[in-house]
Parts: sequence; structure tokens; C-alpha cells
Amino acid sequence: RTMATAMVKRLEGKTIVITGASSGIGWSTAKEFARTSPKNLKLIVAARRVGQLDRLAQEIKEEVGDGVKVLPVKLDVSNPEEVKSFIPCLPAEFQDIDILVNNAYDSGLVKGVAKSPDITAEDINIMFSTNTIGLINMTQAILPIFKKRDQGGRGDIINIGSIAGREAYPGGSVYCAAKAAVRSFSDALRKELIATRVRVIEIDPGQVETEFSIVRFYGDKSQADAVYSGCEPLTPDDIAEVIVFAAGRRENVVVADTMIFPNHQASPTLLHRQS
Amino acid sequence: RTMATAMVKRLEGKTIVITGASSGIGWSTAKEFARTSPKNLKLIVAARRVGQLDRLAQEIKEEVGDGVKVLPVKLDVSNPEEVKSFIPCLPAEFQDIDILVNNAYDSGLVKGVAKSPDITAEDINIMFSTNTIGLINMTQAILPIFKKRDQGGRGDIINIGSIAGREAYPGGSVYCAAKAAVRSFSDALRKELIATRVRVIEIDPGQVETEFSIVRFYGDKSQADAVYSGCEPLTPDDIAEVIVFAAGRRENVVVADTMIFPNHQASPTLLHRQS
Amino acid sequence: RTMATAMVKRLEGKTIVITGASSGIGWSTAKEFARTSPKNLKLIVAARRVGQLDRLAQEIKEEVGDGVKVLPVKLDVSNPEEVKSFIPCLPAEFQDIDILVNNAYDSGLVKGVAKSPDITAEDINIMFSTNTIGLINMTQAILPIFKKRDQGGRGDIINIGSIAGREAYPGGSVYCAAKAAVRSFSDALRKELIATRVRVIEIDPGQVETEFSIVRFYGDKSQADAVYSGCEPLTPDDIAEVIVFAAGRRENVVVADTMIFPNHQASPTLLHRQS
Amino acid sequence: RTMATAMVKRLEGKTIVITGASSGIGWSTAKEFARTSPKNLKLIVAARRVGQLDRLAQEIKEEVGDGVKVLPVKLDVSNPEEVKSFIPCLPAEFQDIDILVNNAYDSGLVKGVAKSPDITAEDINIMFSTNTIGLINMTQAILPIFKKRDQGGRGDIINIGSIAGREAYPGGSVYCAAKAAVRSFSDALRKELIATRVRVIEIDPGQVETEFSIVRFYGDKSQADAVYSGCEPLTPDDIAEVIVFAAGRRENVVVADTMIFPNHQASPTLLHRQS
Ligand SMILES: NC(=O)c1ccc[n+]([C@@H]2O[C@H](COP(=O)([O-])OP(=O)(O)OC[C@H]3O[C@@H](n4cnc5c(N)ncnc54)[C@H](OP(=O)(O)O)[C@@H]3O)[C@@H](O)[C@H]2O)c1
Ligand SMILES: NC(=O)c1ccc[n+]([C@@H]2O[C@H](COP(=O)([O-])OP(=O)(O)OC[C@H]3O[C@@H](n4cnc5c(N)ncnc54)[C@H](OP(=O)(O)O)[C@@H]3O)[C@@H](O)[C@H]2O)c1
Ligand SMILES: NC(=O)c1ccc[n+]([C@@H]2O[C@H](COP(=O)([O-])OP(=O)(O)OC[C@H]3O[C@@H](n4cnc5c(N)ncnc54)[C@H](OP(=O)(O)O)[C@@H]3O)[C@@H](O)[C@H]2O)c1
Ligand SMILES: NC(=O)c1ccc[n+]([C@@H]2O[C@H](COP(=O)([O-])OP(=O)(O)OC[C@H]3O[C@@H](n4cnc5c(N)ncnc54)[C@H](OP(=O)(O)O)[C@@H]3O)[C@@H](O)[C@H]2O)c1
Repeated sequence: RTMATAMVKRLEGKTIVITGASSGIGWSTAKEFARTSPKNLKLIVAARRVGQLDRLAQEIKEEVGDGVKVLPVKLDVSNPEEVKSFIPCLPAEFQDIDILVNNAYDSGLVKGVAKSPDITAEDINIMFSTNTIGLINMTQAILPIFKKRDQGGRGDIINIGSIAGREAYPGGSVYCAAKAAVRSFSDALRKELIATRVRVIEIDPGQVETEFSIVRFYGDKSQADAVYSGCEPLTPDDIAEVIVFAAGRRENVVVADTMIFPNHQASPTLLHRQS
Repeated sequence: RTMATAMVKRLEGKTIVITGASSGIGWSTAKEFARTSPKNLKLIVAARRVGQLDRLAQEIKEEVGDGVKVLPVKLDVSNPEEVKSFIPCLPAEFQDIDILVNNAYDSGLVKGVAKSPDITAEDINIMFSTNTIGLINMTQAILPIFKKRDQGGRGDIINIGSIAGREAYPGGSVYCAAKAAVRSFSDALRKELIATRVRVIEIDPGQVETEFSIVRFYGDKSQADAVYSGCEPLTPDDIAEVIVFAAGRRENVVVADTMIFPNHQASPTLLHRQS
Repeated sequence: RTMATAMVKRLEGKTIVITGASSGIGWSTAKEFARTSPKNLKLIVAARRVGQLDRLAQEIKEEVGDGVKVLPVKLDVSNPEEVKSFIPCLPAEFQDIDILVNNAYDSGLVKGVAKSPDITAEDINIMFSTNTIGLINMTQAILPIFKKRDQGGRGDIINIGSIAGREAYPGGSVYCAAKAAVRSFSDALRKELIATRVRVIEIDPGQVETEFSIVRFYGDKSQADAVYSGCEPLTPDDIAEVIVFAAGRRENVVVADTMIFPNHQASPTLLHRQS
Repeated sequence: RTMATAMVKRLEGKTIVITGASSGIGWSTAKEFARTSPKNLKLIVAARRVGQLDRLAQEIKEEVGDGVKVLPVKLDVSNPEEVKSFIPCLPAEFQDIDILVNNAYDSGLVKGVAKSPDITAEDINIMFSTNTIGLINMTQAILPIFKKRDQGGRGDIINIGSIAGREAYPGGSVYCAAKAAVRSFSDALRKELIATRVRVIEIDPGQVETEFSIVRFYGDKSQADAVYSGCEPLTPDDIAEVIVFAAGRRENVVVADTMIFPNHQASPTLLHRQS
């Protein structure tokens, strides 16, 4: 079948970096790439918790075998020095990166949803330094590799934004601002790279149930359950499929911008709950 | 393979209406649905030129065989009466529609690109009555079918917008306005249907080479060639794949909004030309 | 005082057309222009109810005296023929128009707020033909006058949009679409006229209490009162002041786009009610 | 005259903080407030170059006399500690702030326009820490004063954004991102404060000729002249008038969002040059 088999073909042999791969969407994305192109793929999975990344590598190996080489790398994207040394420190056979998935994200120490003027300076810093500046730094680290290729350069930059970057909501001011910045950066970058084959792809999910983020964001599982009660959120796999689909298009096709909702949601604050 | 095979499964047995199926994106979409689910599908292809639709039915039959039933229907979406009688006049076995692709579009009599104050009243009328009001009327004709289903209703409305609806450009004022209206209508509708399983999906392509529209829009082939010179536009198949992908998601996943560019384009007016 | 006196100076001697001047924002705008430049101004006030327009002319005369010449003109902007003959039928001394305020608006026969699929074809037609196409036709009627002036042309087109054109909401699909179209048209037109001195100005109010529209929209006064209960909406005068301010800027200053909320509102659906 | 005299009345007795007041728009805004309400006003003008602020205080005194008390304060908004001690260190009679104009902005060390991947980590940090985080911190420092007032609080936060925050352009990626973040933050904050009388006002200028920024941004005067050649940019006074107008509205009127272009400009990249 054309669409599916063509995609497999196109992804074969690619080297892919995924940040924030130790849980949630990043984790699922690594697996989805592996499943789609199980015979020949290199996956660099990065995050701060290497133990989780090792577990991910193990699971992928068990599921698809040795065709996919997985390289776990400890990386804090909010640290510009670590980002700078990221590529030079990769084993040579992993340096020729084709796809960067900018997915890492840290909501700060925030427990519950904070409003001005009660947002701590530290949370503001974490939010921008991870979600926005970290993403910009990762992009700048990888672009030189892309630009060395012919036709002005080739490669994919896939930025995971959020519906929060499209429509601001009360209680989300800094997260919304950090994600609006990502969206703006994606657009500017796409324009800067117009004479090349580099694709800049932004994907903006609505509510996704990511076990780790829930606990971190809402403090405990029971609070998280309350948030999702009566709703059926997206799964990380749903987003991973959109990411792999975008990466798997013909080179001339740039799925520049995608917004994905679960069925019960139509804006950051418009959710329908089943009673 | 999960993603691809799951999609085939989900599309099986669906009844799909595509407006503007006699050429371009509509034509390709019919074929892509047929190719993706060749064993069991009903396609209602609608447009004003029935001869073309018959040819399409024939081509699909040749390519995938008898599993896909294709029903060509003469329809002018700008005519509210025709839209009203569209469903009642369908053969009973085609009336249980699952997916509506609102794709029909008429650029008016416009030869070349017209600017205010030189746009004719007739062109303005055609533009809104086909692209905007026609789409709204088709949606209203089909929604009652969707709403009869359980959980508040189910079914997909896929509106083909344009990057023109996101960013206005000189020489495109009325087309941009008509497509901005579509985008706004899609968003409002998605919000209205939040308590149902109906999905409202908007897909906004950049430059697509559609042989028929070219000739119609630029008057002759040589003018059209000038427009595309040095550029490599998207193909109708590229957009068709995105449409079928969106329709093929898990029911809870609403790919609400997608913008697709060819590699050399990053806004309606930002195009890179190879010399 | 510079800012205020400079504005008075700039507006002196202008000829201004206001559509939908028989009530609400249009009515207030006529008065605000008259108050700001009471010594020398020509106001063409247009709507379907000429009786109201005569009353307006009378009130302006009483308030500011004979410096402001007010010309009431019967006009249905949804009728392309009437729009076409509008300028040629004006008395010669009123034909040299400087400012057009596109404010007329008809919500259709709608009583209460209609959702798809229950919006009547007639309401859809009224909504687009008045709010969108009527505005485009008026603009095209007046632009040739502007374009005859030096430096590529000069004059102001002030389009009254709405927050509904920026963010779609349930129950407002067609109104939102019609206003999104206005916004897109404004942007395209501004770009088309970049080599001229013509200014395209869009003003998007939130909730405004306009006595007439209330009754029309919600059917009766008691229903309208319920809508505003606990809220303090904007007044038509508030919007009129913004319109006159924008028109009164230095010629080089284009207040391209303004969104105005009452204090208790921050989006079409986000309103705080005092109990 | 109502509109102008009412505005003067409303601004009387206010205490206003303006960041980045040592040049450009901030400088003009201080003067425009002083001119509009010359009898009774307190202006706290803040920036890093205190010498400039003293000059500004002197000029205002010469122009309008002693009715306006001007307090120059050394402040680096990118330093969270300085922001934190800003209010406590003000003389008591200046602490009851009514209006905050968040205008300070630093383009980093950037000479000319930088593109990814060549933007220095330092420039990225300056850009976000001044334009975005500095603005958020200033807002958080002043909000508690506003919130102490009745009806949930009152006061104005006026954020100077940019058209760059609305539409990203090549060569502006980080500036665009920082300003998109401001815009998103403004929107979220307005929603958070919906039950109060606090007004959040965003003003987005296009090209403004600000003598200092020119030199800083383009390296030298001759380069700057090339940028503006054939164009007539806005002046800082044009923007100051819009700021003062917004602050001078009735309390219930929130001019939430304004975009201002010079006549020859209709998007960040669409400029018409006279030859
Ligand atoms: N979940 C949602 O509802 C939702 C909605 C819209 C958008 N998104 C976006 O989707 C993306 C993924 O989110 P998620 O929901 O999958 O969250 P998640 O489960 O919390 O995963 C976040 C990942 O980022 C990593 N990370 C955090 N800080 C990092 C740092 N400084 N350096 C490197 N890695 C870091 C975490 O791993 P370590 O802690 O091991 O570093 C983790 O792997 C984010 O960009 C998020 O904004 C999510
Ligand atoms: N091509 C592009 O660059 C591009 C870019 C962005 C978005 N789009 C959108 O993509 C969609 C399809 O465009 P396309 O490029 O494929 O154009 P196309 O090749 O010109 O096809 C338009 C189709 O619409 C049909 N149609 C026109 N008026 C109709 C009416 N009143 N009633 C029913 N059918 C009608 C035409 O068939 P009949 O004449 O037989 O009725 C034809 O099948 C449109 O919504 C368009 O706005 C296209
Ligand atoms: N009120 C709000 O909350 C609000 C909010 C956002 C935006 N707006 C916008 O503000 C503008 C003015 O609205 P409003 O609130 O002042 O409404 P309004 O009080 O109902 O006034 C509407 C005016 O338009 C005229 N009109 C209607 N159909 C017309 C036609 N076919 N030809 C000529 N004139 C026509 C009406 O007069 P005749 O019946 O005599 O013709 C009336 O003078 C509209 O564009 C509206 O969308 C209003
Ligand atoms: N000019 C334009 O074309 C344009 C267009 C759109 C938007 N804007 C926006 O308008 C605002 C004002 O810009 P402008 O054109 O007037 O620029 P400007 O003339 O360069 O003025 C910038 C001001 O910010 C101050 N500043 C810089 N860094 C600071 C810091 N860390 N802490 C405190 N103050 C600081 C500067 O003074 P010190 O150096 O003394 O601290 C100066 O007073 C900015 O927000 C800018 O983004 C400008």
C-alpha cells in the first residue's frame, strides 16, 4: 500500500534525536519511529533520567529487535553547555542526524496552576530555559549538520508546542508564553530556511494523559484523576503517530503546523465532561 | 504494522462524501480513500461536471476493483436548493454518511488576480456562495445524520481551507476572506459539537498544483507555468494523504487543524524560486 | 494641548460616510465626529430607517450647530445595486469622501443564538450579504474617490469587526465567520494599498450595549437584561471615541487593528458576572 | 470638549511607572503623559542610564512646570533582584502606582540581523530576560499594589509588544519569539484578572524610528539610514499618544490590543519604498 509503505521507505536509515524521551510523548515517539521503520534506524533518546532511557532502549529492542539502534544520552536542555557538547560527544555513527524532535519540557516546581503575581522567579526561569531557550539551543546545535547537506541543507526539526501557545488561558500565563514563543520561533525558522530542504514542523497537542507529567503537575494521582474525570484525553501514542506521519511525508511536503484535540476538547478551557 | 493497519480497519465500511471531486484535491482524495480501504467503502463523489466524476469512478474501479462503490452525483454547492435535496435524493444504501469532505471551490470568473476596487460583484458572490456558504449548507445538510448516532452523534466534517484563510495577501482579498470565514466556522462548529463524537477537521494547504484550477485561474497554461516556475508545488495526492490520515485516526483523536506547505514556501507570499 | 487640538485640526473639513448610523455604534460615531470637529464637517449617515437618521441629524444640529452638515441617506448595504448608485446619487458637495466607516450590520432574523444545523439559509445570506459582502461593496464604491488623490490616493476605511472575528464561539458560527472574513479583507486591502496613503483601520469591540440590537437580537428587553445581568458592557460612545481617535491620527499613523473589551470580559465567552 | 477633557480628568493624580524611559518610546510616553495631565502627576522613569533619565526629568520640568513630579530610577529589568527591590526602595509618596508601562527592551549585542544557527547564547538570554521575563517580573512586582484596591483591584498594565510578536519573520526569530511570549502573557493575565478592575493593555507598533535603537541595532547611523530609506517610519510620539489614549479611557474600557503601522507598512516584511 502506497501511503504506508512509502513512509516506511522514507524513514529507513534515518538518525533521529528525541529530547524528553524518558516519558510521555517523547517515549511514545521513540517507539512509534521504531515500529514504523524497524529494520534500519538510529534513535538518540535524551533526557535527564538515564535509567528511564535505558528501560526505553530495552523495550524497543524487545519489541522490534536489533534493526533499531537506540542510544540513551543524559541531557539537560536547559543547560546551554550540555547542549553545546551534545553533538561532539555522540559516537561518530550517530552524528549524522536527520530528524530532531524538540519535545523536552519542564513545568517547573509548580504544584497546581499558578497565577500572577504568585509565580516564582525560579519557575519562570525553568519554564523559559527548558521549553523555549532549550529548544532554540538544540535547534542551533543541530542545524549546522543539516546545512552541510546539498540543496541548501536537509533534515527535519519537529517542535512540540501546545494549544497553550495558540490561546492563552488563566492560570497558564508563563507556560502559554513559553509555548507561544516556540510557535513564533518555528515560523521564523521555517522562513529563514526557505531556500533549503530543511523542514520545520510544529505539532500542538491538546490534553494528553502522560502519567509522569500528571503526577508532577498536579502533585498527586488523586488530584490528577480529578482533572481528567469525565474526560478522555489523548494518549502519547496518538501524538507520536502524528509526529511520525509528518516525518514520513515526501521531502517536499512540510506539515508545518498541526493542532490535535481529544474529542471532548475544543480549546484550552473548553472541555466537555461526561457525568 | 499498527498505525497503517489500524487506519485501514477504522475506515472500513465508511460512506464518504467528497465535494469538488471532479478534479484536483477532491479527485485525489477519492482515490486515496479507495486505495487505503479497497475492500469495503462507499464514495459519493460530487461536482458539476458529471462526466469527470464518471471517469473517476471508472479509474477507481480499475485500480482497486469492486470493493469500493463509487456514486457520482451532479451537485452545485452554491445552490441551496440542490444542497437541500442532495441527501434525500441519494440511494438509500448511500445515505448513512460517515465523512464529509468539504472541498468544492470556485474562484469565480477571475482571470489573474484581482484587487479592490476592481473585483466584480459576480466574482464576490461566487466566491462566498461556493466556498463559504456552500460549505456551511453542506455541513448543515449532513449534520442531522451524524447527530442521530449515539453519544451525541458521530462522523467527520473535513473542511479544506487554505493558508489564505490564515494570512491575507494583496490580490487575494475576497478569496482570503472566504477562507478565513471557513476557518472560523470550523472552529465554532467544533465547539458546538463538543459533547458529541463528531470531529471537525480543517486542512489548510499552501501551493498545490491542480491542473484544472491552474488553467481556470491563470487563463492559460503558459501563464500558469510562469507562476510555478522555479517552484515545486505540492501535489493533490500530498493533501489527499493528509485528509485520509486525519480521517483514519482513533475516534478520540481530532486532527483539528493542519497547515501544509511545499518546501519552498513559508507563507502565502514567501516563496523561494530556484533560478 | 497638542494631542487633542491636533486631532481637531486634522478632522476639519472632512466628509465622512457612516453606514448603520440609525442606531448603536454608528449613531454614536456620527455624534462623536460632530463633537470633535463641530465647526466644519460633512457627515453622510446611511441606514434603512431614514426616520431615525433624520432624528440623528436633528440632534447633532441641536448639539453643535450648523458647522456640521448632516446628510441622511436611505441605504441597504446588502443590495449591490443600491451600493452602486450610492455615490453618484449624492449631492455634489458630499461626494468628495474622506472617511468611510463600515459599521452596518444585520444579525438576520435570528432570535436567540442559533447553532448548526438549525441556522436558516435566509439568516446565513443576510449575515454574509450585509456584514461581509455589503462592506466589501461599499469599500469598492468609495475607493475610486480615494485613489484619485495624490501619492497613490488618500482616505480612511474604518471597518467595524468584532472579537467574534478573532475567536469563534459556540452559537456564533455564522456571525463569527462573517466577521473573520471582514478582518481578513481588511488585512488584504491594507496590503494592496501599501503604496498609497489610504489607511485601512479595523476596530473589534467586545460586548457593547446597543439598545436596538439588544431588542432585535434577544427578542425582548427582559431577555436582553438577563444577558447583561451582572455585567457592565461597553457603550456605543466608548467605541465611537476609539473610531474618532484612529481617524484623527497623523496621516502616517495607521491604527490598523484595535480590540476593545469591557473590564469584565476577556474573550467572547469569558465574562465575569457580579452576583 | 468631552473626549479630551474627560481624559485629562481621568489621568489627574496618577502615579505612573515607565520602564525603558531613557530613550525612544519610553521617553516620549513620559512626555506625553506630562503634557496631557500637566497639573498633577507622578512619573517614575526607569532605565539603566540614569543620566538620560535626569535629562528627561529636566525637559519635562521645563515644558510643563512643577505639576508633574518626575522620579528617575536606575533599574535593570533583566535583573530579578533589582526588580524585587524596586517598589520597596521608592519614596513612600511614589509607591501607590496606578499605571505600569512595560516598555524596556534590549536587542542584545546583535549587530545587524542574526539567523539561526548563528544567534549567540548571550543574545538569546538578553532577549528573553529583558523583553519577556523582565516584563513578567515587573508585572508581578506591581500587581500586589493594584490588588489591594477595591473591586478586586485596579490599575493599568500596558505592555509594549511588537508586530514581530504577531507575525514571525526571517532574521527575527528570537525577537519575534520574545514578543509572542509577551502577547500571550498579556492575554492570559487579562483573563486571570477578569474579576478585577485591572486593565491589561497590549500595544504592538510596527516600524518606529527611535534614534538610540537604530544605532544600537544596525551598528551605525549610515546602516540605519539605509533601512529607513524611502520609508517614513512612525515616531515615538505616535506610539506615546496611543499609550496615553488607552490609559485615559473610562475605567470600564479596556483597549486590550492595538497594532499600529506607518502608512507604508502592512506586515513586518511588507514595506513600500519610495524611490
Ligand atoms: N501532556 C499534555 O497534555 C501536553 C499538551 C500539550 C503539549 N504537550 C507538550 O508535549 C511535550 C512532552 O510532554 P509530555 O506530556 O510527554 O511530558 P512528560 O511526560 O512530563 O515528559 C517530559 C519529558 O521532558 C523531559 N525533560 C524535562 N526537563 C528536561 C530537561 N531540562 N532536559 C531534558 N529533558 C527534560 C523529561 O525527562 P527527565 O525528567 O528525565 O529529564 C520527560 O522525558 C512537551 O513539550 C509538552 O509541552 C503536552
Ligand atoms: N490548489 C491550491 O493551490 C490550493 C491551495 C489551498 C487550498 N486549496 C483548496 O483546495 C480545495 C480544492 O481545490 P483544487 O485546487 O483541487 O481546485 P480544482 O482542481 O479547481 O477543483 C475544484 C473542484 O471544485 C468543484 N467545484 C467548483 N465549483 C463547484 C460548485 N459550485 N459545486 C460543486 N463543485 C464545485 C470543481 O468541479 P466542477 O467544476 O465540476 O463543479 C472541482 O472539482 C479548494 O477548497 C481550494 O480552496 C487549493
Ligand atoms: N453591539 C455589540 O456588542 C457589538 C460587538 C462587536 C461588534 N459590533 C459591531 O458593531 C457594529 C454596529 O453594531 P451595533 O451594535 O451598533 O448594532 P445596531 O445598534 O443593531 O446597529 C446596526 C445598524 O446597522 C444598520 N443596518 C442593518 N442592516 C443594514 C443594511 N442592510 N444596510 C444598511 N444599514 C443596515 C441598522 O439600521 P437600519 O435597521 O435602519 O438599517 C443599524 O443602524 C456592527 O458591525 C457590529 O457587528 C457590535
Ligand atoms: N522601534 C521600533 O521599531 C519598535 C517596533 C515595535 C516595538 N517596539 C518596542 O517598543 C519598546 C521601546 O523600544 P524603543 O524603540 O523605544 O527602543 P529604544 O529607543 O532602544 O529604548 C529602549 C529602552 O529600554 C531601556 N532598556 C534596555 N534594556 C533595559 C534593561 N535591562 N532594564 C531597563 N531598561 C532597559 C533602554 O535604556 P537603558 O539602555 O538606559 O537601560 C531604553 O530606554 C520596546 O519594547 C520595543 O520592543 C519598538
